[in-house]
Amino acid sequence: MKNVLIIGCGLIGSSLLRGIKKKKIAKKIFVYEKSKKTLKKIRKLKLPGIIVTRPEEAVSKCKLIIFCTPMSEYKKIILKLNKHLNKNHLITDVGSSKSRSLKIVKNNLKKNIFWTSSHPIAGSEVSGPDYGSANLFKNKWCVIIREKQTNSTHLKFLISFWKKLGSRTILMTPEKHDKIFSITSHLPHLIAYNLVKSAQDFEKKQKYDLIKFSAGGLRDFSRIAASNEIMWRDILFDNKTNVTNAINLFIKNLNEFKRDIKLKKSKSIITKLIKTKKVRTKILKLKQDISKPNFGRD
Amino acid sequence: MKNVLIIGCGLIGSSLLRGIKKKKIAKKIFVYEKSKKTLKKIRKLKLPGIIVTRPEEAVSKCKLIIFCTPMSEYKKIILKLNKHLNKNHLITDVGSSKSRSLKIVKNNLKKNIFWTSSHPIAGSEVSGPDYGSANLFKNKWCVIIREKQTNSTHLKFLISFWKKLGSRTILMTPEKHDKIFSITSHLPHLIAYNLVKSAQDFEKKQKYDLIKFSAGGLRDFSRIAASNEIMWRDILFDNKTNVTNAINLFIKNLNEFKRDIKLKKSKSIITKLIKTKKVRTKILKLKQDISKPNFGRD
Repeated sequence: MKNVLIIGCGLIGSSLLRGIKKKKIAKKIFVYEKSKKTLKKIRKLKLPGIIVTRPEEAVSKCKLIIFCTPMSEYKKIILKLNKHLNKNHLITDVGSSKSRSLKIVKNNLKKNIFWTSSHPIAGSEVSGPDYGSANLFKNKWCVIIREKQTNSTHLKFLISFWKKLGSRTILMTPEKHDKIFSITSHLPHLIAYNLVKSAQDFEKKQKYDLIKFSAGGLRDFSRIAASNEIMWRDILFDNKTNVTNAINLFIKNLNEFKRDIKLKKSKSIITKLIKTKKVRTKILKLKQDISKPNFGRD
Repeated sequence: MKNVLIIGCGLIGSSLLRGIKKKKIAKKIFVYEKSKKTLKKIRKLKLPGIIVTRPEEAVSKCKLIIFCTPMSEYKKIILKLNKHLNKNHLITDVGSSKSRSLKIVKNNLKKNIFWTSSHPIAGSEVSGPDYGSANLFKNKWCVIIREKQTNSTHLKFLISFWKKLGSRTILMTPEKHDKIFSITSHLPHLIAYNLVKSAQDFEKKQKYDLIKFSAGGLRDFSRIAASNEIMWRDILFDNKTNVTNAINLFIKNLNEFKRDIKLKKSKSIITKLIKTKKVRTKILKLKQDISKPNFGRD
Protein backbone atom coordinates (compact mmCIF):
# COMPACT_ATOMS: atom_id res chain seq x y z
CA MET A 1 0.00 0.00 0.00
CA LYS A 2 1.07 3.52 -0.66
CA ASN A 3 0.05 6.12 1.91
CA VAL A 4 -2.33 6.30 4.83
CA LEU A 5 -4.13 9.19 6.50
CA ILE A 6 -5.06 8.78 10.15
CA ILE A 7 -7.64 11.28 11.35
CA GLY A 8 -7.62 11.59 15.14
CA CYS A 9 -4.58 10.41 17.04
CA GLY A 10 -5.75 9.22 20.44
CA LEU A 11 -5.35 5.72 21.85
CA ILE A 12 -6.56 3.91 18.71
CA GLY A 13 -5.17 6.38 16.12
CA SER A 14 -1.71 6.42 17.66
CA SER A 15 -1.72 2.63 17.98
CA LEU A 16 -2.56 2.35 14.28
CA LEU A 17 0.22 4.80 13.54
CA ARG A 18 2.72 2.74 15.52
CA GLY A 19 1.44 -0.58 14.16
CA ILE A 20 1.45 0.53 10.51
CA LYS A 21 5.00 1.83 10.94
CA LYS A 22 6.22 -1.29 12.71
CA LYS A 23 4.68 -3.70 10.22
CA LYS A 24 5.72 -1.47 7.28
CA ILE A 25 2.16 -1.51 5.96
CA ALA A 26 2.36 1.92 4.29
CA LYS A 27 4.98 4.11 2.68
CA LYS A 28 3.99 7.38 4.28
CA ILE A 29 1.62 7.94 7.20
CA PHE A 30 -0.14 11.29 7.47
CA VAL A 31 -1.73 12.27 10.76
CA TYR A 32 -4.40 14.85 11.46
CA GLU A 33 -5.21 15.73 15.05
CA LYS A 34 -7.48 18.61 16.07
CA SER A 35 -6.43 18.98 19.71
CA LYS A 36 -3.37 21.12 20.34
CA LYS A 37 -2.75 19.30 23.61
CA THR A 38 -2.69 15.91 21.85
CA LEU A 39 -0.47 17.30 19.06
CA LYS A 40 2.02 18.39 21.67
CA LYS A 41 2.04 14.87 23.12
CA ILE A 42 2.52 13.30 19.68
CA ARG A 43 5.55 15.52 19.09
CA LYS A 44 6.95 14.78 22.53
CA LEU A 45 6.52 11.05 22.00
CA LYS A 46 8.32 11.39 18.64
CA LEU A 47 5.67 9.24 16.98
CA PRO A 48 6.26 8.40 13.32
CA GLY A 49 4.07 10.11 10.70
CA ILE A 50 3.73 13.43 8.97
CA ILE A 51 1.46 15.81 10.84
CA VAL A 52 -0.92 17.81 8.64
CA THR A 53 -2.81 20.85 9.86
CA ARG A 54 -5.89 20.14 7.72
CA PRO A 55 -6.96 16.57 6.85
CA GLU A 56 -7.94 17.53 3.26
CA GLU A 57 -4.28 18.38 2.54
CA ALA A 58 -3.25 14.74 2.61
CA VAL A 59 -6.28 13.09 0.99
CA SER A 60 -5.05 13.13 -2.61
CA LYS A 61 -1.74 11.55 -1.53
CA CYS A 62 -3.41 8.65 0.32
CA LYS A 63 -5.12 5.40 -0.56
CA LEU A 64 -6.42 4.53 2.92
CA ILE A 65 -8.16 7.01 5.22
CA ILE A 66 -8.95 5.95 8.79
CA PHE A 67 -11.30 7.95 11.01
CA CYS A 68 -10.26 7.57 14.67
CA THR A 69 -12.10 10.58 16.11
CA PRO A 70 -15.21 10.44 18.29
CA MET A 71 -18.16 9.65 15.99
CA SER A 72 -19.69 13.09 16.53
CA GLU A 73 -16.77 14.55 14.54
CA TYR A 74 -17.31 12.45 11.40
CA LYS A 75 -19.79 14.72 9.61
CA LYS A 76 -17.72 17.88 9.88
CA ILE A 77 -14.60 16.15 8.57
CA ILE A 78 -16.42 14.32 5.75
CA LEU A 79 -17.73 17.66 4.47
CA LYS A 80 -14.17 18.98 4.36
CA LEU A 81 -12.81 15.92 2.56
CA ASN A 82 -15.61 15.38 0.03
CA LYS A 83 -14.27 17.39 -2.87
CA HIS A 84 -10.85 15.70 -2.58
CA LEU A 85 -12.21 12.14 -2.53
CA ASN A 86 -12.40 9.74 -5.48
CA LYS A 87 -13.60 6.15 -5.84
CA ASN A 88 -10.13 4.70 -5.30
CA HIS A 89 -10.08 5.95 -1.76
CA LEU A 90 -10.64 3.31 0.84
CA ILE A 91 -12.21 4.88 3.89
CA THR A 92 -12.77 3.19 7.21
CA ASP A 93 -13.42 4.21 10.82
CA VAL A 94 -13.02 2.56 14.20
CA GLY A 95 -16.25 3.71 15.86
CA SER A 96 -17.88 1.52 18.50
CA SER A 97 -21.42 1.68 17.15
CA LYS A 98 -22.53 1.47 13.55
CA SER A 99 -26.16 1.80 12.51
CA ARG A 100 -26.69 5.49 13.12
CA SER A 101 -23.10 6.61 12.54
CA LEU A 102 -23.14 4.92 9.11
CA LYS A 103 -26.40 6.68 8.26
CA ILE A 104 -24.73 10.00 8.97
CA VAL A 105 -21.77 8.92 6.84
CA LYS A 106 -24.07 7.97 3.96
CA ASN A 107 -26.03 11.19 4.21
CA ASN A 108 -22.91 13.32 4.00
CA LEU A 109 -20.32 11.44 1.99
CA LYS A 110 -20.03 12.33 -1.71
CA LYS A 111 -21.74 9.84 -4.05
CA ASN A 112 -19.82 6.80 -5.33
CA ILE A 113 -17.31 6.93 -2.51
CA PHE A 114 -17.02 3.77 -0.38
CA TRP A 115 -16.84 3.67 3.39
CA THR A 116 -16.15 0.27 4.91
CA SER A 117 -16.46 0.47 8.66
CA SER A 118 -14.26 -1.32 11.22
CA HIS A 119 -14.46 -1.83 14.96
CA PRO A 120 -11.33 -3.13 16.65
CA ILE A 121 -12.29 -4.47 20.11
CA ALA A 122 -9.25 -2.94 21.72
CA GLY A 123 -10.46 -0.06 23.84
CA SER A 124 -9.24 0.71 27.31
CA GLU A 125 -10.02 3.00 30.21
CA VAL A 126 -7.10 5.19 29.22
CA SER A 127 -7.15 7.54 26.26
CA GLY A 128 -4.67 9.66 24.34
CA PRO A 129 -1.54 8.80 22.35
CA ASP A 130 0.63 8.15 25.44
CA TYR A 131 -1.03 4.80 25.98
CA GLY A 132 -1.05 3.66 22.35
CA SER A 133 0.91 0.61 21.29
CA ALA A 134 1.83 -1.14 18.04
CA ASN A 135 0.54 -4.35 19.64
CA LEU A 136 -2.84 -2.99 20.75
CA PHE A 137 -4.72 -4.99 18.11
CA LYS A 138 -2.76 -8.20 18.47
CA ASN A 139 -5.03 -11.21 19.06
CA LYS A 140 -8.03 -8.90 19.39
CA TRP A 141 -11.19 -9.18 17.36
CA CYS A 142 -11.80 -6.60 14.68
CA VAL A 143 -15.35 -6.47 13.37
CA ILE A 144 -15.62 -5.34 9.75
CA ILE A 145 -19.02 -4.15 8.58
CA ARG A 146 -20.43 -5.75 5.45
CA GLU A 147 -23.48 -4.16 3.88
CA LYS A 148 -25.24 -4.74 0.55
CA GLN A 149 -23.32 -1.92 -1.07
CA THR A 150 -19.90 -2.85 0.38
CA ASN A 151 -17.07 -2.84 -2.14
CA SER A 152 -15.68 -6.38 -2.03
CA THR A 153 -12.15 -5.30 -3.00
CA HIS A 154 -12.14 -2.82 -0.15
CA LEU A 155 -13.47 -5.47 2.19
CA LYS A 156 -10.66 -7.89 1.27
CA PHE A 157 -8.13 -5.13 1.64
CA LEU A 158 -9.38 -4.23 5.11
CA ILE A 159 -9.43 -7.83 6.30
CA SER A 160 -5.81 -8.15 5.25
CA PHE A 161 -4.95 -4.77 6.82
CA TRP A 162 -6.29 -5.71 10.27
CA LYS A 163 -4.72 -9.16 10.05
CA LYS A 164 -1.33 -7.59 9.43
CA LEU A 165 -1.82 -5.70 12.69
CA GLY A 166 -2.44 -9.02 14.43
CA SER A 167 -6.24 -8.90 14.70
CA ARG A 168 -8.73 -11.68 14.11
CA THR A 169 -11.44 -10.37 11.78
CA ILE A 170 -15.15 -11.09 11.57
CA LEU A 171 -17.84 -9.71 9.25
CA MET A 172 -21.15 -8.35 10.55
CA THR A 173 -24.04 -6.19 9.45
CA PRO A 174 -24.34 -2.84 11.28
CA GLU A 175 -27.54 -4.10 12.95
CA LYS A 176 -26.00 -7.28 14.30
CA HIS A 177 -22.91 -5.40 15.44
CA ASP A 178 -24.95 -2.87 17.38
CA LYS A 179 -27.09 -5.50 19.06
CA ILE A 180 -24.11 -7.56 20.19
CA PHE A 181 -22.10 -4.65 21.49
CA SER A 182 -25.07 -3.08 23.26
CA ILE A 183 -24.81 -6.10 25.58
CA THR A 184 -21.11 -6.93 25.72
CA SER A 185 -19.79 -3.39 25.87
CA HIS A 186 -22.29 -0.52 26.04
CA LEU A 187 -24.39 -1.96 28.87
CA PRO A 188 -21.33 -2.89 31.02
CA HIS A 189 -19.94 0.60 30.59
CA LEU A 190 -23.10 2.45 31.50
CA ILE A 191 -23.64 0.11 34.44
CA ALA A 192 -20.14 0.84 35.66
CA TYR A 193 -20.79 4.58 35.43
CA ASN A 194 -24.03 4.25 37.34
CA LEU A 195 -22.58 2.01 40.00
CA VAL A 196 -19.79 4.46 40.68
CA LYS A 197 -22.34 7.28 40.69
CA SER A 198 -24.47 5.36 43.21
CA ALA A 199 -21.41 4.96 45.44
CA GLN A 200 -20.76 8.70 45.19
CA ASP A 201 -24.40 9.50 46.02
CA PHE A 202 -24.28 7.17 49.01
CA GLU A 203 -20.97 8.60 50.22
CA LYS A 204 -22.35 12.13 50.05
CA LYS A 205 -25.54 11.24 51.90
CA GLN A 206 -24.00 9.06 54.61
CA LYS A 207 -20.74 11.00 54.92
CA TYR A 208 -18.91 7.66 54.96
CA ASP A 209 -15.53 7.17 53.38
CA LEU A 210 -16.35 4.32 51.03
CA ILE A 211 -13.68 4.37 48.42
CA LYS A 212 -10.92 2.95 50.55
CA PHE A 213 -12.95 -0.23 50.86
CA SER A 214 -13.48 -0.54 47.12
CA ALA A 215 -11.32 -3.67 46.80
CA GLY A 216 -14.40 -5.79 47.49
CA GLY A 217 -15.81 -5.24 43.98
CA LEU A 218 -16.30 -1.53 43.27
CA ARG A 219 -12.74 -0.97 42.04
CA ASP A 220 -13.20 -3.27 39.01
CA PHE A 221 -16.14 -1.18 37.88
CA SER A 222 -14.26 2.05 38.47
CA ARG A 223 -11.76 0.99 35.83
CA ILE A 224 -14.23 0.90 32.99
CA ALA A 225 -16.08 3.92 34.37
CA ALA A 226 -12.89 5.89 33.73
CA SER A 227 -13.19 5.65 29.93
CA ASN A 228 -13.36 8.71 27.67
CA GLU A 229 -16.63 10.64 28.13
CA ILE A 230 -17.04 12.13 24.62
CA MET A 231 -16.53 8.78 22.99
CA TRP A 232 -19.04 7.16 25.32
CA ARG A 233 -21.69 9.84 24.96
CA ASP A 234 -21.45 9.36 21.18
CA ILE A 235 -21.79 5.57 21.47
CA LEU A 236 -24.76 5.71 23.84
CA PHE A 237 -26.61 8.27 21.72
CA ASP A 238 -25.76 6.48 18.49
CA ASN A 239 -26.95 3.08 19.70
CA LYS A 240 -29.89 4.49 21.68
CA THR A 241 -32.52 1.87 20.83
CA ASN A 242 -30.39 -1.21 21.52
CA VAL A 243 -28.89 0.38 24.63
CA THR A 244 -32.37 1.18 25.97
CA ASN A 245 -33.48 -2.41 25.34
CA ALA A 246 -30.37 -3.68 27.10
CA ILE A 247 -31.04 -1.44 30.13
CA ASN A 248 -34.64 -2.67 30.29
CA LEU A 249 -33.60 -6.33 30.16
CA PHE A 250 -31.04 -5.70 32.88
CA ILE A 251 -33.47 -3.84 35.17
CA LYS A 252 -36.00 -6.67 34.71
CA ASN A 253 -33.38 -9.21 35.88
CA LEU A 254 -32.31 -6.95 38.73
CA ASN A 255 -35.89 -6.58 39.97
CA GLU A 256 -36.39 -10.36 39.89
CA PHE A 257 -33.17 -10.82 41.80
CA LYS A 258 -34.30 -8.24 44.38
CA ARG A 259 -37.53 -10.17 44.81
CA ASP A 260 -35.56 -13.41 45.31
CA ILE A 261 -33.55 -11.72 48.06
CA LYS A 262 -36.68 -10.25 49.68
CA LEU A 263 -38.44 -13.60 49.71
CA LYS A 264 -35.21 -15.47 50.54
CA LYS A 265 -35.64 -17.78 47.57
CA SER A 266 -32.49 -19.75 48.16
CA LYS A 267 -32.82 -22.24 45.31
CA SER A 268 -33.58 -19.56 42.72
CA ILE A 269 -30.59 -17.41 43.78
CA ILE A 270 -28.18 -20.35 43.89
CA THR A 271 -29.29 -21.53 40.43
CA LYS A 272 -28.72 -18.05 39.01
CA LEU A 273 -25.32 -17.67 40.65
CA ILE A 274 -24.12 -21.06 39.42
CA LYS A 275 -25.35 -20.39 35.89
CA THR A 276 -23.53 -17.07 35.55
CA LYS A 277 -20.30 -18.70 36.71
CA LYS A 278 -20.23 -20.76 33.53
CA VAL A 279 -19.78 -17.64 31.41
CA ARG A 280 -16.47 -16.95 33.13
CA THR A 281 -15.22 -20.41 32.20
CA LYS A 282 -16.26 -19.79 28.60
CA ILE A 283 -14.53 -16.39 28.52
CA LEU A 284 -11.30 -17.92 29.80
CA LYS A 285 -11.55 -20.80 27.35
CA LEU A 286 -11.93 -18.31 24.50
CA LYS A 287 -8.86 -16.46 25.83
CA GLN A 288 -10.85 -13.27 26.21
CA ASP A 289 -9.32 -12.75 29.64
CA ILE A 290 -6.43 -13.93 31.80
CA SER A 291 -7.25 -16.65 34.32
CA LYS A 292 -5.09 -15.36 37.16
CA PRO A 293 -7.32 -14.72 40.20
CA ASN A 294 -7.93 -11.05 40.73
CA PHE A 295 -6.23 -10.42 37.37
CA GLY A 296 -2.99 -11.27 39.15
CA ARG A 297 -3.08 -7.96 41.01
CA ASP A 298 -1.78 -9.47 44.23
CA MET B 1 -0.33 -17.19 71.47
CA LYS B 2 -0.83 -20.87 72.09
CA ASN B 3 -3.11 -22.74 69.69
CA VAL B 4 -5.61 -21.79 67.00
CA LEU B 5 -8.63 -23.59 65.57
CA ILE B 6 -9.62 -22.72 62.01
CA ILE B 7 -13.14 -23.84 61.12
CA GLY B 8 -13.62 -24.05 57.35
CA CYS B 9 -10.55 -24.25 55.15
CA GLY B 10 -11.42 -22.60 51.84
CA LEU B 11 -9.69 -19.57 50.33
CA ILE B 12 -9.69 -17.50 53.53
CA GLY B 13 -9.27 -20.37 56.03
CA SER B 14 -6.33 -21.88 54.17
CA SER B 15 -4.73 -18.44 53.77
CA LEU B 16 -5.01 -17.92 57.53
CA LEU B 17 -3.48 -21.35 58.06
CA ARG B 18 -0.55 -20.52 55.80
CA GLY B 19 -0.14 -17.00 57.21
CA ILE B 20 -0.26 -18.09 60.87
CA LYS B 21 2.32 -20.79 60.13
CA LYS B 22 4.59 -18.46 58.18
CA LYS B 23 4.48 -15.68 60.77
CA LYS B 24 4.72 -18.18 63.64
CA ILE B 25 1.69 -16.65 65.30
CA ALA B 26 0.55 -19.87 67.02
CA LYS B 27 2.11 -23.01 68.40
CA LYS B 28 -0.35 -25.49 66.98
CA ILE B 29 -2.99 -24.93 64.31
CA PHE B 30 -6.04 -27.19 64.28
CA VAL B 31 -8.20 -27.30 61.17
CA TYR B 32 -11.77 -28.46 60.77
CA GLU B 33 -13.25 -28.85 57.30
CA LYS B 34 -16.62 -30.43 56.54
CA SER B 35 -16.18 -31.10 52.82
CA LYS B 36 -14.40 -34.32 51.93
CA LYS B 37 -13.37 -32.88 48.58
CA THR B 38 -11.71 -29.89 50.27
CA LEU B 39 -10.06 -32.16 52.86
CA LYS B 40 -8.52 -34.17 50.04
CA LYS B 41 -7.13 -30.97 48.53
CA ILE B 42 -5.70 -29.86 51.89
CA ARG B 43 -3.87 -33.17 52.23
CA LYS B 44 -2.63 -33.04 48.65
CA LEU B 45 -1.37 -29.48 49.15
CA LYS B 46 0.42 -30.65 52.33
CA LEU B 47 -0.86 -27.62 54.21
CA PRO B 48 0.38 -27.20 57.77
CA GLY B 49 -2.06 -27.85 60.62
CA ILE B 50 -3.64 -30.74 62.44
CA ILE B 51 -6.88 -31.86 60.86
CA VAL B 52 -9.67 -32.67 63.30
CA THR B 53 -12.79 -34.58 62.35
CA ARG B 54 -15.04 -32.68 64.76
CA PRO B 55 -14.41 -29.02 65.65
CA GLU B 56 -15.34 -29.54 69.33
CA GLU B 57 -12.34 -31.92 69.72
CA ALA B 58 -9.87 -29.08 69.47
CA VAL B 59 -11.72 -26.32 71.34
CA SER B 60 -10.30 -26.98 74.81
CA LYS B 61 -6.75 -26.92 73.40
CA CYS B 62 -7.16 -23.57 71.65
CA LYS B 63 -7.22 -19.91 72.61
CA LEU B 64 -8.35 -18.47 69.25
CA ILE B 65 -11.19 -19.91 67.18
CA ILE B 66 -11.77 -18.53 63.68
CA PHE B 67 -14.95 -19.27 61.75
CA CYS B 68 -14.20 -19.30 58.00
CA THR B 69 -17.30 -21.17 56.80
CA PRO B 70 -20.24 -19.65 54.92
CA MET B 71 -22.32 -17.71 57.46
CA SER B 72 -25.24 -20.14 57.14
CA GLU B 73 -23.06 -22.76 58.88
CA TYR B 74 -22.33 -20.72 62.02
CA LYS B 75 -25.37 -21.74 64.07
CA LYS B 76 -24.90 -25.48 63.67
CA ILE B 77 -21.23 -25.29 64.63
CA ILE B 78 -21.79 -22.93 67.58
CA LEU B 79 -24.30 -25.38 69.06
CA LYS B 80 -21.66 -28.13 68.86
CA LEU B 81 -18.94 -25.99 70.44
CA ASN B 82 -20.99 -24.36 73.21
CA LYS B 83 -20.38 -26.83 76.03
CA HIS B 84 -16.61 -26.76 75.38
CA LEU B 85 -16.31 -22.97 75.39
CA ASN B 86 -15.18 -20.80 78.28
CA LYS B 87 -14.68 -17.04 78.72
CA ASN B 88 -10.99 -17.22 77.82
CA HIS B 89 -11.80 -18.30 74.30
CA LEU B 90 -11.41 -15.61 71.71
CA ILE B 91 -13.80 -16.27 68.85
CA THR B 92 -13.88 -14.43 65.56
CA ASP B 93 -15.23 -14.97 62.06
CA VAL B 94 -14.48 -13.59 58.62
CA GLY B 95 -18.04 -13.18 57.28
CA SER B 96 -18.81 -10.45 54.77
CA SER B 97 -21.91 -9.10 56.47
CA LYS B 98 -22.48 -8.52 60.12
CA SER B 99 -25.80 -7.26 61.54
CA ARG B 100 -27.91 -10.36 61.05
CA SER B 101 -25.13 -12.91 61.31
CA LEU B 102 -24.10 -11.46 64.69
CA LYS B 103 -27.72 -11.67 65.89
CA ILE B 104 -27.69 -15.37 65.08
CA VAL B 105 -24.38 -15.71 66.90
CA LYS B 106 -25.76 -13.93 69.97
CA ASN B 107 -28.93 -16.00 69.97
CA ASN B 108 -27.03 -19.27 69.93
CA LEU B 109 -23.69 -18.73 71.65
CA LYS B 110 -23.46 -19.74 75.31
CA LYS B 111 -23.71 -16.81 77.76
CA ASN B 112 -20.56 -14.94 78.79
CA ILE B 113 -18.63 -16.08 75.74
CA PHE B 114 -17.22 -13.29 73.56
CA TRP B 115 -17.38 -13.21 69.79
CA THR B 116 -15.43 -10.41 68.13
CA SER B 117 -16.14 -10.35 64.43
CA SER B 118 -13.64 -9.61 61.63
CA HIS B 119 -13.95 -8.98 57.91
CA PRO B 120 -10.73 -9.13 55.91
CA ILE B 121 -11.33 -7.43 52.52
CA ALA B 122 -9.42 -10.09 50.68
CA GLY B 123 -11.94 -12.13 48.74
CA SER B 124 -11.54 -13.24 45.17
CA GLU B 125 -13.51 -14.91 42.41
CA VAL B 126 -11.73 -18.17 43.16
CA SER B 127 -12.50 -20.33 46.16
CA GLY B 128 -11.01 -23.35 47.86
CA PRO B 129 -7.63 -23.99 49.53
CA ASP B 130 -5.71 -24.25 46.22
CA TYR B 131 -5.81 -20.51 45.78
CA GLY B 132 -4.99 -19.54 49.38
CA SER B 133 -1.81 -17.66 50.19
CA ALA B 134 0.08 -16.58 53.30
CA ASN B 135 0.16 -13.08 51.78
CA LEU B 136 -3.56 -12.83 51.02
CA PHE B 137 -4.12 -10.28 53.80
CA LYS B 138 -1.02 -8.21 53.17
CA ASN B 139 -1.81 -4.50 52.73
CA LYS B 140 -5.54 -5.30 52.76
CA TRP B 141 -8.06 -3.73 55.06
CA CYS B 142 -9.47 -5.85 57.85
CA VAL B 143 -12.60 -4.45 59.48
CA ILE B 144 -12.99 -5.44 63.13
CA ILE B 145 -16.45 -5.08 64.63
CA ARG B 146 -16.71 -3.10 67.86
CA GLU B 147 -19.99 -3.25 69.74
CA LYS B 148 -20.99 -2.07 73.23
CA GLN B 149 -20.34 -5.49 74.70
CA THR B 150 -17.01 -6.07 72.92
CA ASN B 151 -14.25 -7.34 75.18
CA SER B 152 -11.49 -4.76 74.88
CA THR B 153 -8.70 -7.28 75.52
CA HIS B 154 -10.02 -9.46 72.74
CA LEU B 155 -10.29 -6.44 70.47
CA LYS B 156 -6.65 -5.48 71.08
CA PHE B 157 -5.59 -9.06 70.51
CA LEU B 158 -7.43 -9.25 67.20
CA ILE B 159 -6.01 -5.95 65.96
CA SER B 160 -2.54 -7.24 66.65
CA PHE B 161 -3.37 -10.63 65.07
CA TRP B 162 -4.49 -9.13 61.75
CA LYS B 163 -1.58 -6.70 61.75
CA LYS B 164 0.84 -9.60 62.07
CA LEU B 165 -0.71 -11.01 58.89
CA GLY B 166 0.00 -7.71 57.14
CA SER B 167 -3.49 -6.16 57.25
CA ARG B 168 -4.47 -2.59 58.02
CA THR B 169 -7.25 -2.65 60.62
CA ILE B 170 -10.24 -0.40 61.17
CA LEU B 171 -13.04 -0.55 63.75
CA MET B 172 -16.73 -0.32 62.80
CA THR B 173 -20.15 -1.05 64.22
CA PRO B 174 -22.03 -3.90 62.47
CA GLU B 175 -24.52 -1.36 61.09
CA LYS B 176 -21.89 0.89 59.54
CA HIS B 177 -20.04 -2.12 58.15
CA ASP B 178 -23.13 -3.48 56.46
CA LYS B 179 -24.08 -0.14 54.94
CA ILE B 180 -20.62 0.46 53.49
CA PHE B 181 -20.19 -3.01 52.06
CA SER B 182 -23.70 -3.10 50.63
CA ILE B 183 -22.40 -0.43 48.23
CA THR B 184 -18.72 -1.28 47.72
CA SER B 185 -19.08 -5.03 47.53
CA HIS B 186 -22.58 -6.54 47.65
CA LEU B 187 -24.11 -4.26 45.01
CA PRO B 188 -21.19 -4.71 42.55
CA HIS B 189 -21.39 -8.48 42.92
CA LEU B 190 -25.11 -8.75 42.36
CA ILE B 191 -24.87 -6.34 39.43
CA ALA B 192 -22.15 -8.48 37.90
CA TYR B 193 -24.33 -11.59 38.26
CA ASN B 194 -27.28 -9.84 36.66
CA LEU B 195 -25.25 -8.38 33.83
CA VAL B 196 -23.88 -11.78 32.95
CA LYS B 197 -27.39 -13.23 33.23
CA SER B 198 -28.71 -10.52 30.90
CA ALA B 199 -26.01 -11.43 28.38
CA GLN B 200 -27.02 -15.07 28.63
CA ASP B 201 -30.72 -14.22 28.17
CA PHE B 202 -29.87 -12.12 25.14
CA GLU B 203 -27.65 -14.82 23.64
CA LYS B 204 -30.38 -17.40 24.02
CA LYS B 205 -33.03 -15.18 22.47
CA GLN B 206 -30.96 -13.83 19.58
CA LYS B 207 -28.88 -16.96 19.01
CA TYR B 208 -25.81 -14.76 18.72
CA ASP B 209 -22.43 -15.79 19.96
CA LEU B 210 -21.71 -12.93 22.33
CA ILE B 211 -19.08 -14.17 24.68
CA LYS B 212 -16.19 -14.05 22.27
CA PHE B 213 -16.69 -10.29 22.08
CA SER B 214 -16.67 -9.87 25.84
CA ALA B 215 -13.36 -7.99 25.88
CA GLY B 216 -15.27 -4.73 25.44
CA GLY B 217 -16.44 -4.70 29.06
CA LEU B 218 -18.41 -7.84 29.92
CA ARG B 219 -15.35 -9.91 30.82
CA ASP B 220 -14.49 -7.69 33.81
CA PHE B 221 -17.92 -8.33 35.26
CA SER B 222 -17.69 -12.04 34.57
CA ARG B 223 -14.74 -12.22 36.93
CA ILE B 224 -16.66 -11.14 40.01
CA ALA B 225 -19.74 -13.04 38.85
CA ALA B 226 -17.66 -16.20 39.24
CA SER B 227 -17.46 -15.94 43.05
CA ASN B 228 -18.73 -18.67 45.37
CA GLU B 229 -22.52 -19.00 45.27
CA ILE B 230 -23.21 -20.25 48.81
CA MET B 231 -21.13 -17.46 50.34
CA TRP B 232 -22.93 -14.88 48.22
CA ARG B 233 -26.41 -16.16 48.87
CA ASP B 234 -25.65 -15.90 52.60
CA ILE B 235 -24.34 -12.35 52.26
CA LEU B 236 -27.29 -11.13 50.18
CA PHE B 237 -29.87 -12.68 52.53
CA ASP B 238 -28.00 -11.51 55.62
CA ASN B 239 -27.73 -7.91 54.48
CA LYS B 240 -31.16 -7.87 52.81
CA THR B 241 -32.30 -4.39 53.84
CA ASN B 242 -29.13 -2.52 52.90
CA VAL B 243 -28.75 -4.52 49.70
CA THR B 244 -32.34 -3.70 48.70
CA ASN B 245 -31.73 -0.01 49.36
CA ALA B 246 -28.56 -0.16 47.29
CA ILE B 247 -30.40 -1.82 44.38
CA ASN B 248 -33.11 0.85 44.54
CA LEU B 249 -30.58 3.70 44.50
CA PHE B 250 -28.82 2.07 41.55
CA ILE B 251 -32.03 1.51 39.55
CA LYS B 252 -33.01 5.13 40.18
CA ASN B 253 -29.70 6.31 38.71
CA LEU B 254 -29.98 3.88 35.82
CA ASN B 255 -33.47 5.13 34.92
CA GLU B 256 -32.27 8.73 34.99
CA PHE B 257 -29.37 7.78 32.75
CA LYS B 258 -31.74 6.02 30.35
CA ARG B 259 -33.84 9.17 30.19
CA ASP B 260 -30.73 11.25 29.45
CA ILE B 261 -29.92 8.91 26.54
CA LYS B 262 -33.49 8.98 25.27
CA LEU B 263 -33.64 12.78 25.32
CA LYS B 264 -30.01 13.07 24.15
CA LYS B 265 -29.12 15.27 27.11
CA SER B 266 -25.49 15.68 26.17
CA LYS B 267 -24.46 18.02 29.00
CA SER B 268 -26.04 15.87 31.69
CA ILE B 269 -24.39 12.67 30.40
CA ILE B 270 -20.97 14.28 29.99
CA THR B 271 -21.12 15.75 33.52
CA LYS B 272 -21.99 12.34 34.96
CA LEU B 273 -19.26 10.56 33.01
CA ILE B 274 -16.60 13.09 34.05
CA LYS B 275 -17.66 12.93 37.69
CA THR B 276 -17.42 9.16 37.94
CA LYS B 277 -13.94 9.24 36.43
CA LYS B 278 -12.69 11.00 39.56
CA VAL B 279 -13.44 7.96 41.70
CA ARG B 280 -10.94 5.93 39.69
CA THR B 281 -8.23 8.50 40.43
CA LYS B 282 -9.10 8.31 44.12
CA ILE B 283 -8.99 4.49 44.12
CA LEU B 284 -5.56 4.51 42.50
CA LYS B 285 -4.32 7.16 44.92
CA LEU B 286 -5.45 5.02 47.84
CA LYS B 287 -3.62 2.07 46.26
CA GLN B 288 -6.82 0.04 46.13
CA ASP B 289 -5.98 -1.02 42.57
CA ILE B 290 -3.08 -1.14 40.14
CA SER B 291 -2.89 1.73 37.65
CA LYS B 292 -1.79 -0.32 34.65
CA PRO B 293 -4.35 0.14 31.86
CA ASN B 294 -6.55 -2.90 31.43
CA PHE B 295 -4.98 -4.30 34.64
CA GLY B 296 -1.86 -4.87 32.55
CA ARG B 297 -3.56 -7.80 30.77
CA ASP B 298 -2.03 -6.89 27.43
